[in-house]
Amino acid sequence: MKKIRLGIYGYGNIAKGIERAAPKNGDVSVEAIFTRRDPSDIRTISGIKATASDDVLDHVKKIDVMILCGGSATDLPKQGPELARHFNTVDSYDNHPKISDYMKAVGEQAEAHRRTAIVSAGWDPGLFSMMKSLFSSLLPDGRNQAFWGPGVSQGHSEAIRRIDGVTGAIQYTVPSEDVMSEVRKGSVKDYTARQKHKRICYVATEKNADREKISRTIREMPNYYADYDVEINYVPLSELGRKHSRMPHGGHVFRNGETAEGERYSMEFSMNFGSNPEFTASIMIAFARAAFRLYEEKNFGAKTPLDIPLSYLSPKDAKEQVREFF
Amino acid sequence: MKKIRLGIYGYGNIAKGIERAAPKNGDVSVEAIFTRRDPSDIRTISGIKATASDDVLDHVKKIDVMILCGGSATDLPKQGPELARHFNTVDSYDNHPKISDYMKAVGEQAEAHRRTAIVSAGWDPGLFSMMKSLFSSLLPDGRNQAFWGPGVSQGHSEAIRRIDGVTGAIQYTVPSEDVMSEVRKGSVKDYTARQKHKRICYVATEKNADREKISRTIREMPNYYADYDVEINYVPLSELGRKHSRMPHGGHVFRNGETAEGERYSMEFSMNFGSNPEFTASIMIAFARAAFRLYEEKNFGAKTPLDIPLSYLSPKDAKEQVREFF
Repeated sequence: MKKIRLGIYGYGNIAKGIERAAPKNGDVSVEAIFTRRDPSDIRTISGIKATASDDVLDHVKKIDVMILCGGSATDLPKQGPELARHFNTVDSYDNHPKISDYMKAVGEQAEAHRRTAIVSAGWDPGLFSMMKSLFSSLLPDGRNQAFWGPGVSQGHSEAIRRIDGVTGAIQYTVPSEDVMSEVRKGSVKDYTARQKHKRICYVATEKNADREKISRTIREMPNYYADYDVEINYVPLSELGRKHSRMPHGGHVFRNGETAEGERYSMEFSMNFGSNPEFTASIMIAFARAAFRLYEEKNFGAKTPLDIPLSYLSPKDAKEQVREFF
Repeated sequence: MKKIRLGIYGYGNIAKGIERAAPKNGDVSVEAIFTRRDPSDIRTISGIKATASDDVLDHVKKIDVMILCGGSATDLPKQGPELARHFNTVDSYDNHPKISDYMKAVGEQAEAHRRTAIVSAGWDPGLFSMMKSLFSSLLPDGRNQAFWGPGVSQGHSEAIRRIDGVTGAIQYTVPSEDVMSEVRKGSVKDYTARQKHKRICYVATEKNADREKISRTIREMPNYYADYDVEINYVPLSELGRKHSRMPHGGHVFRNGETAEGERYSMEFSMNFGSNPEFTASIMIAFARAAFRLYEEKNFGAKTPLDIPLSYLSPKDAKEQVREFF
């Protein structure tokens, strides 16, 4: 069987995750890795020689699906629509309020150029969205509630690193076990941001930095920290690398409600994983498989994970899936 | 908006669940209920007059999707293929080893007569199958493990009722919390049937019945009981009706494994609900909605829940779903 030829666009943590996860998927192979940096500076995990992103169009015929690993803030809004003119694509665009606009921009190019693009195919958005949608459809009278962590939030870590005098920071988002246990028992109450999650920070500073001021700056930071209980631990920079360089994460989606006649139900999807970028990468590979199948069926344009039959994510054929999963 | 007109074929517990769950779904209406019994003997929950199943073909133009509520042992193998000649159908066929054959028989009729049939769209098979498939695709290196209950198993209850001297029986399947807690921590061990589930029976007997013999018969019953730890409680018949007439159920699907480079992950889907037939009914209504959409797209033939984009299960349009779930 011919393997699905993947390209990786942008060489960061998720890209490395794709290199690591690809061998677990017998039907795909990583053919090329594109970078804006000088390719000769890049040493890839799989040993593939990196290619300058300027040369990407030379590879149109050698790539079945391009996995976009750029950032959602500034890279993807440009790269997503541009690459969908030439390639089938998968990305994990995660700027929640702008997904509809992003999808529209990608979809216009993909449709015009007869390509298939799957957007927001990570774990949140992506897998969490699938659970929320599925739960809501199967049981329309109820309430979804999501929790994140325990895990590192890159955005919240970065926000601390930008403070004067800070030399390094890692922030863990930790869901409240007490609140989750109430929800698990059926609660559909409103919980505040503060009740649902706590933020634990490990911060390294310059020698004579004003730590009281830094702590205050963190605690008062709007959106990121002001609405939460925040625990701040000052540690040497070396300890950040030694104890906090792994990127575990996890999360939960709950739905509680009633079927009919007051019969209560509760559903929960839970996960935790050792490496956030590897997990995201593994999900994106499954969606790359689906993107290629949709493309072969001439089902062009931009799709979300909700637009795709689950069987398309599997390397197994339909009959084998019925035998194994039913 | 025009509502999707549902028919119910066979008037038992699931059918009643559909009558109760339908009002929670603003886009469907129950148009007709078909029964093999004398329709004048049936008093439906919704007040709809029942129709003799012999007259079903008079209703071809009045029903968008027929929900088949007959039993999997003898009703559906006959009714499924027959009704798929005339109607779009949804069923919860649950005879696991025969699903491929059943699907083929239904599919041949549905394709030949340009109808859409969704088979095995309950919770197991159905929702559990979706979770197993999705988990396996997103994380190919790992192991699925399923647990059922706590809940009443109709088949196991019925098996006791057939024993001489027994006047009534209810059997609860109860998963082992200890084993589940090991699996939740990442275990991929093999567990025996006995380790995973326990069977708790409430049995009513005739006055002078030989309870020792009945207990022995239960404990030695192959497939049903011999491989399990069985707790047997003798109770008055009146207590069965009073304390054990509700039909709660639940279950778990786990997947544990590694992404790559030894990074461990675990995923879990859990649910519990107050009424097994109402929960099954609520799922089938969502798949009826999907069946009608597939039919309108001329996507005919037999499908499983894996063949359907999640967005088709929702009454919300695609844009609304992106806004709400992403």
